Amino acid sequence: MDLGIAKRHAILLASSRGLGRACAESLAREGVNVVINGRTADDVHRAVDEIASRYKVDAKGVVGDSSTIEVQEQLIAACDSPDIVLLNGEGPSPKMFQDITENDLHESIERALTAPLMFLQRVVPGMCERKFGRIVAISSAMVKSPNSAMSLSHGPRLGLTGVLKGLSKDLAKFNVTINQLLPERFDTYRQEQMAQIVMQIRGVTYEEARADQIKSIKAGRLGKPEEFGDACAFLCSAQAGYISGQNLQLDGGSYEGVF
Amino acid sequence: MDLGIAKRHAILLASSRGLGRACAESLAREGVNVVINGRTADDVHRAVDEIASRYKVDAKGVVGDSSTIEVQEQLIAACDSPDIVLLNGEGPSPKMFQDITENDLHESIERALTAPLMFLQRVVPGMCERKFGRIVAISSAMVKSPNSAMSLSHGPRLGLTGVLKGLSKDLAKFNVTINQLLPERFDTYRQEQMAQIVMQIRGVTYEEARADQIKSIKAGRLGKPEEFGDACAFLCSAQAGYISGQNLQLDGGSYEGVF
Amino acid sequence: MDLGIAKRHAILLASSRGLGRACAESLAREGVNVVINGRTADDVHRAVDEIASRYKVDAKGVVGDSSTIEVQEQLIAACDSPDIVLLNGEGPSPKMFQDITENDLHESIERALTAPLMFLQRVVPGMCERKFGRIVAISSAMVKSPNSAMSLSHGPRLGLTGVLKGLSKDLAKFNVTINQLLPERFDTYRQEQMAQIVMQIRGVTYEEARADQIKSIKAGRLGKPEEFGDACAFLCSAQAGYISGQNLQLDGGSYEGVF
Amino acid sequence: MDLGIAKRHAILLASSRGLGRACAESLAREGVNVVINGRTADDVHRAVDEIASRYKVDAKGVVGDSSTIEVQEQLIAACDSPDIVLLNGEGPSPKMFQDITENDLHESIERALTAPLMFLQRVVPGMCERKFGRIVAISSAMVKSPNSAMSLSHGPRLGLTGVLKGLSKDLAKFNVTINQLLPERFDTYRQEQMAQIVMQIRGVTYEEARADQIKSIKAGRLGKPEEFGDACAFLCSAQAGYISGQNLQLDGGSYEGVF
Repeated sequence: MDLGIAKRHAILLASSRGLGRACAESLAREGVNVVINGRTADDVHRAVDEIASRYKVDAKGVVGDSSTIEVQEQLIAACDSPDIVLLNGEGPSPKMFQDITENDLHESIERALTAPLMFLQRVVPGMCERKFGRIVAISSAMVKSPNSAMSLSHGPRLGLTGVLKGLSKDLAKFNVTINQLLPERFDTYRQEQMAQIVMQIRGVTYEEARADQIKSIKAGRLGKPEEFGDACAFLCSAQAGYISGQNLQLDGGSYEGVF
Repeated sequence: MDLGIAKRHAILLASSRGLGRACAESLAREGVNVVINGRTADDVHRAVDEIASRYKVDAKGVVGDSSTIEVQEQLIAACDSPDIVLLNGEGPSPKMFQDITENDLHESIERALTAPLMFLQRVVPGMCERKFGRIVAISSAMVKSPNSAMSLSHGPRLGLTGVLKGLSKDLAKFNVTINQLLPERFDTYRQEQMAQIVMQIRGVTYEEARADQIKSIKAGRLGKPEEFGDACAFLCSAQAGYISGQNLQLDGGSYEGVF
Repeated sequence: MDLGIAKRHAILLASSRGLGRACAESLAREGVNVVINGRTADDVHRAVDEIASRYKVDAKGVVGDSSTIEVQEQLIAACDSPDIVLLNGEGPSPKMFQDITENDLHESIERALTAPLMFLQRVVPGMCERKFGRIVAISSAMVKSPNSAMSLSHGPRLGLTGVLKGLSKDLAKFNVTINQLLPERFDTYRQEQMAQIVMQIRGVTYEEARADQIKSIKAGRLGKPEEFGDACAFLCSAQAGYISGQNLQLDGGSYEGVF
Repeated sequence: MDLGIAKRHAILLASSRGLGRACAESLAREGVNVVINGRTADDVHRAVDEIASRYKVDAKGVVGDSSTIEVQEQLIAACDSPDIVLLNGEGPSPKMFQDITENDLHESIERALTAPLMFLQRVVPGMCERKFGRIVAISSAMVKSPNSAMSLSHGPRLGLTGVLKGLSKDLAKFNVTINQLLPERFDTYRQEQMAQIVMQIRGVTYEEARADQIKSIKAGRLGKPEEFGDACAFLCSAQAGYISGQNLQLDGGSYEGVF
C-alpha cells in the first residue's frame, strides 16, 4: 500500500527508542524525512544513523527534553515546516493516590499536557496553511480505563485527549488530522523495566514477571513495536485524511468497553 | 424519598451561588449540615444565613479561593470529618487554541485539576475509615464533547475525570463513591454573563441572546438549578452507595453520543 | 426529597419480583399508581396486594408475557395514559457464541428489542401530548462491557439502547425522558439462580458460589434491590426532566471505562 | 507498506459496488484473492472481471442476498477457508419511529444482525484453527450517534456491534480480530440516492442537495471510497493483529464525542 507520504517531513518527539522509534522506522520506510528526538545523545545518534542508512531518507537528531522551550525551538529549527508530528514522552512511575505530591502533578502535567500543546501551537498554523498535517499522539490504554496507581499518567493524558479532540474538529477542514494511539503492553524496554520492578517487589523470576505481563492481554502476547509503528504510519498516510479525532487502541483486544 | 443523610456533614466548594449553591440547598433540605464556600464574602454570608434559617441545619461559611492551601485548611477546620464533598469551581473564559498561553494552562489546571485532587487527599482517608463518603464533582458537558474554544475548561476537567474514575475503583469497597455531574446550560448567572457577552460581540438583543442559548438544548429550555441540586442530593444519598464512577449528564437530552 | 409524582400512573413491565418489583415499590411509595406485570399469576397478585396495602395507591395487575400483543393491550387497557413506563424483561441464559441458533436470536430479539419498541409506540404519543413522560429501561451492565457468553442478552439490549437514545433526542422537547439503568449483580432471585447453576457446574458450596459473585464487584457486595428502585424513582421524578438519554450504571463502581 | 496478506483469501459481502467494492479493490491490490458478492448479477460480474484483470488475483462472484442461507452456502463453497471476511449490507431507508412496523424491524434485524452472525458461525472456527482471521464489519457512524429516523439502521447495527465486541475478546488469542468501520458520508451511489430524495422532498437543486451533504462533515468534503478501502485493508493486514474490538470512525472528524 502506497501511503502517499514519501518526501514528507516529520518531527517525532521521544523517538530514539521504544514505540516512538518504531513510528520513526515505519515512517522513514515510507520515505518520510525524520527528526529524531530523545534525551540520551547516544540513542538519538544511533537512531539517526540507522534510519538514514536503512531507508535513504534525511534524518536529523535533536537531543534533549522536548517539554522544554529550548528543545522545542531546536526541533522547529531542524524542520520548520513539518507535515507530520508525533507527540510522545516517557510516562511517569506508578504512585498511590495519597502519595502524589503537588509537584508530581505539576511535573507530569507539564510533560504530558502543557508542553505538547505548546509544541502544537508552533506547528499547527503552518499545517493549516499548507493544507496537510498529520498529528499522532502516543497516549495510553489507561485514558479509557484508568487505574489510580497511574493517575500521573492518565490524568494529564486524558486532559490532552480532550484538548486534541476539540482541536481536531477545527482542523479537519484544513486536511490536518489529529489522532491518538492507545498502546497496552508492547515489547519494549518499558516492559523490561516493569518486569525488573515486579521481580524485586514480588520476588518472582524474570520468566514469571514476563508471563504475568501477558495475562491481562487477551491476545495472549505483547504487542510488537513494528505493529505500533505501522499503525502510526497508516494514520499519517495521505489516505487517512478523513480519519480524525480517533483514539485507536492497540491492546491485543483487551479493552472491556464497547466504545 | 428519604435520602438517609440527615445530620451528615458536607463541604461544598464554590457553593455561594449558581449550581454549587443549588446543591447546598438540596442537601440542606435533606438535613445535611453544610460548609459554604465562595470568593465573595457577601455571597457566602447571605447563603449561610438563608440556608441556616430555611432548613434549620448547621451552616458555616469559608470565604476565599478553594484552590489555595489556606482556604482548603479553613474548610477542613470548619468541618474535619466531612461525609459529603462537592468539588466545584468557576470555569474559565473561552479562548481560541492559538491564543492560549502557558500561564492560562497553568492557572486553569491548578484550579480545576490539581487543587481539587489536593483537597481530596485531605478528606478521602477519613471517609474510608468511617466507611461513608459521597464525592460529587461539578464538571461540564464538554468533557464528553470538547469544543476547542473551551480547551481551558474541558482539558483540566477531563484530566480530573480520569483521576476520579481511577480513584473511584479503589474507594468503592469503603462505601465512598465519586461521581460527576455534567451540566449544559443551566439558568444561572453564568448564562446571564454569556448572554451579555453575546449581545456585545454579535450585536443582538438580550432576548435574542437568551433564545440562542436554548437552541442547542434538545429540551427546548435551560435547566433549573434546583433540578441540578436534586440530582446532586440523590448521588449523595445513602441509597446511592452502589453508584460510583458515573458521569451523569444534565443537558436536556442534548448529548449526541450513545454512551 | 419530594419527587413530584404523587398520583402519576405507571406501567411496569416484568415487575412482580426482582428489580422490576423494587422499582414498583419505590414509585408506589412516592404515591404513584402502578400496573404490575409478570408471567406468574401468584407473583403478580401478591405484588399488587402488598403494594396497594403498603402505600395506599391504586395497584392493578396484568398477568402474562409483555412481549405479546395481547398483554400489551391489556396493559394499556389497565392504564391508558401512563406517565411512567418501565421496560423490563427476564434475561436469557448464557450460551456460547457457536451454539446460538437463529431461533435463539429471534426469541431474544423479540423479547428485548422488538416488543419493547412496539410497546413504546403505544405510549409515546400520549406522553408527548400530555407533556410528561418518564421512560426507564432496565438494561444490563453488559451493554457497555459485552461478554460473548451473554450475546443473547447484550446484543438485543444494545440495539434497544441505540434506538432509545435516538428517540430520546426527539422526545426531550415534550418533557418526555428516556433513560436506562444498567445493573450488575443485585441481590435478587436471579443471583440465587446463578449461584445454583455455579454450584452444579463447578461443584462448589453455596457459600463459595455467593462469595464468587461479589469478587467482580468493586464495592465488595451485591446491590440491594431497593437501591435500584430508588434510582429508578429518581429518574422518574418531576425534577429529572432535564436528564435524558443517560445510561446509569448501578454496578458498585465496577465498570472499568472512563465513560 | 507491505500488508503481509498477499495470497490470502477474502469473502466480501455486498462488495459489488460502493464501500464494499472499495474494500475489495484495496485488498485485491495487496494480492488478496476475493469473493465478490452482490444482488445484481451485472454488478458482480463487472466487479469480478475488473478486479481480476487489474490486480491479477483470483476473483470469484456470488450473486444474491447474503442474508439468505443459500447465498451464505454458495459463498463458503466459493471459498471454504477465508482468512478475511467483510460484513456489509445495504442500509434501510429512513423511517419515523412511530411509522416503524414490526415487520420493518424483523427485516432490518435479519439483514444487519442475525444474518451476519449466522455467517460468522460458518467462518470463525476455521479461522481459529488456522490462527489467522481478520473480520471487518462496515457499520455506520450512527451507532455512536443515533438519529431516530434511522432506527432501523443503528438499532440492529448497534446490536451487532455489541455481539462482535464480546466475540472479539474470545478470538484475540487465536490471532482472529474483529473491527468495525463507521463511515459517514462517502461519495458513493448511496449519497447520490440521498441527494435525489432530498431534491424531491425539499425542492432544491442537485447542487444544493450535494452541498448540504457536506455541511455536517467537519472535513468540508465527502469521503472517498478508496480512503475507506485502504482503512479496511490496513485492519486486515498481518500487522494489525494486535488491534481488535475497535470501532474506527471515518467521518471527516465529525463525531462530537471524545470517545
